[in-house]
Amino acid sequence: MGNRTIRVTDVTLRDGMHAVRHQFSVEDARAIAGALDRTGVAIIEATHGDGLGGSSVQYGFSKETEEDYLRAVCETVRNSKVAALLLPGIGTVEHMKRAADTGIQVIRVATHCTEADISEQHIGEARKMGLETVGFLMMSHMVPAGVLVEEAKKMASYGAQTVYVVDSAGAMLMGEVREKVTALREALPDEVEVGFHAHNNLGVSVANSLAAVEAGATRIDASLAGLGAGAGNTPLEVFAAVAEKAGIDTGVRLYPAMDAAEDVVRPRMARPVQTDRVSLTMGYAGVYSSFLLHAFRAAEQFGVDARDILVELGKRKVVGGQEDMIVDVAVELAKRKEVGAAGR
Amino acid sequence: MGNRTIRVTDVTLRDGMHAVRHQFSVEDARAIAGALDRTGVAIIEATHGDGLGGSSVQYGFSKETEEDYLRAVCETVRNSKVAALLLPGIGTVEHMKRAADTGIQVIRVATHCTEADISEQHIGEARKMGLETVGFLMMSHMVPAGVLVEEAKKMASYGAQTVYVVDSAGAMLMGEVREKVTALREALPDEVEVGFHAHNNLGVSVANSLAAVEAGATRIDASLAGLGAGAGNTPLEVFAAVAEKAGIDTGVRLYPAMDAAEDVVRPRMARPVQTDRVSLTMGYAGVYSSFLLHAFRAAEQFGVDARDILVELGKRKVVGGQEDMIVDVAVELAKRKEVGAAGR
Repeated sequence: MGNRTIRVTDVTLRDGMHAVRHQFSVEDARAIAGALDRTGVAIIEATHGDGLGGSSVQYGFSKETEEDYLRAVCETVRNSKVAALLLPGIGTVEHMKRAADTGIQVIRVATHCTEADISEQHIGEARKMGLETVGFLMMSHMVPAGVLVEEAKKMASYGAQTVYVVDSAGAMLMGEVREKVTALREALPDEVEVGFHAHNNLGVSVANSLAAVEAGATRIDASLAGLGAGAGNTPLEVFAAVAEKAGIDTGVRLYPAMDAAEDVVRPRMARPVQTDRVSLTMGYAGVYSSFLLHAFRAAEQFGVDARDILVELGKRKVVGGQEDMIVDVAVELAKRKEVGAAGR
Repeated sequence: MGNRTIRVTDVTLRDGMHAVRHQFSVEDARAIAGALDRTGVAIIEATHGDGLGGSSVQYGFSKETEEDYLRAVCETVRNSKVAALLLPGIGTVEHMKRAADTGIQVIRVATHCTEADISEQHIGEARKMGLETVGFLMMSHMVPAGVLVEEAKKMASYGAQTVYVVDSAGAMLMGEVREKVTALREALPDEVEVGFHAHNNLGVSVANSLAAVEAGATRIDASLAGLGAGAGNTPLEVFAAVAEKAGIDTGVRLYPAMDAAEDVVRPRMARPVQTDRVSLTMGYAGVYSSFLLHAFRAAEQFGVDARDILVELGKRKVVGGQEDMIVDVAVELAKRKEVGAAGR
């Protein structure tokens, strides 16, 4: 059994930004941060969905500047700490300094699960600035536990005080979560915490988060009404209820969390966040959401099922930046179809 | 580890009827049954949400007659069996005979988890008619495993070929599901199957269904897009994906299930089926949905939080028919509030 007292990081104003195409206003951010602060949640992350510097042609422009969001959230909260996400390559040390000037206390440095190396400078600088520093291993389902452990150790050696197993594609089931969290917990120094970030693409975000805590995670991500990319994240209010039933102290007050989800976030949702055909396919195939549009286009062009393309990309463990593989796979599937192999 | 080959019963056209206030047309039923049949799902249940005879002032009138729905579904399917639900007290043996005449092959006889006795006649008659017969123990979270086992044994002794643990309020977590399914599996004769029916009020319907299979259940209920009462049931298409990943053969083809949910059921959903404030409160408190309206009325009248009323009713294990307790609880909470006890 894991630790029974954990800290939750809410990502409504960061991962949730994906679900509203980064179009929350500063007033939205204030309303959501205020409602979150009243729940007692430990940390509130607020950044472009792709982290500091994410507002761009490639990742979509935010409605307002990063500094305006962060200042608004920092001014609003009374109890929660404020965090920003940073992906080295998108965000720079300069972005981090500007974010720190707004009053945030936590930085989370995210890399692909095999690329912890590129987090060294940012983690080091963050510690020098006195920020609580978290390492975030994205797409953690793509590598075996042993590989993940080595990457986590790197982040810890750079100074990360917590390392997260991040199920970016919502592709993990409870057994895998238990295995990977346990492996990190056993391999990392006692003073380094282990965290878990879920997506609900396979409908098991709450159960996965519970499994992570049972395996020794003391940090869990969640968002109000599950607002987040794909099928969304672990819903904060649901996790608060379930954790309480399971005897885990999250520090999150249930009724204020329910009210924040229902009265503050749901009315601001641009579309329902749910496990629908597209998000379920992502979780089933274990691929990036950035592949979806390309896969649907290629599917139409070559007369194959986009899902078969995505499943094949998942099997080949294609990563972001290898989008050209999508057409190759589509062509191959179309040929196989021609020679009469039955589709799924 | 449980059996790796299971049979799924789809309840879109029965539990899902609650979510559309029993207003599916015969044409809707045909479209949904046809799409389900193409998924390869073993059994399709189609009845008023409260079972045969449910169409009434008390439980809400169906759009069409039970016989019309059942005949349409039986005519449509080529592979799946067709089932009807019956709650003794609402449905009679006469209803069951009329349903059998439409061509159904399975009957599920449902009682409150402590009232298996009242299923004896209906289970006996169903077996005489040559119907595959299932016992359904509703609100199974309300009693300890030992009590549930005794009730399940009664149903088996009357002739039930399967007995279900039914989490009507969506109030169970995985540990409880494992415990209760294991207890039934160990206590019942080998030839009697154990089933599990989930609701998603705590966001764990898929994980609970998986836990049930691991504990020995060979029958699982699900519905397309989770259409069902409260926060809905285990979504069939999500469970199909997760079961496949977990090495469980459900006989359900994934892509047709995804397509049926997305193209046939979602466009027919009157409202989103989700874990919102009301359905989460139900699961957290472990109470009947029939209490909700009364609790909200009493809450307004006495100036207390409806959630506190529901949680208190759950603690007192109030059952259907005891709705007069709701006002008593509201009055008590209002008094406690006056004497200055802090609310949740």
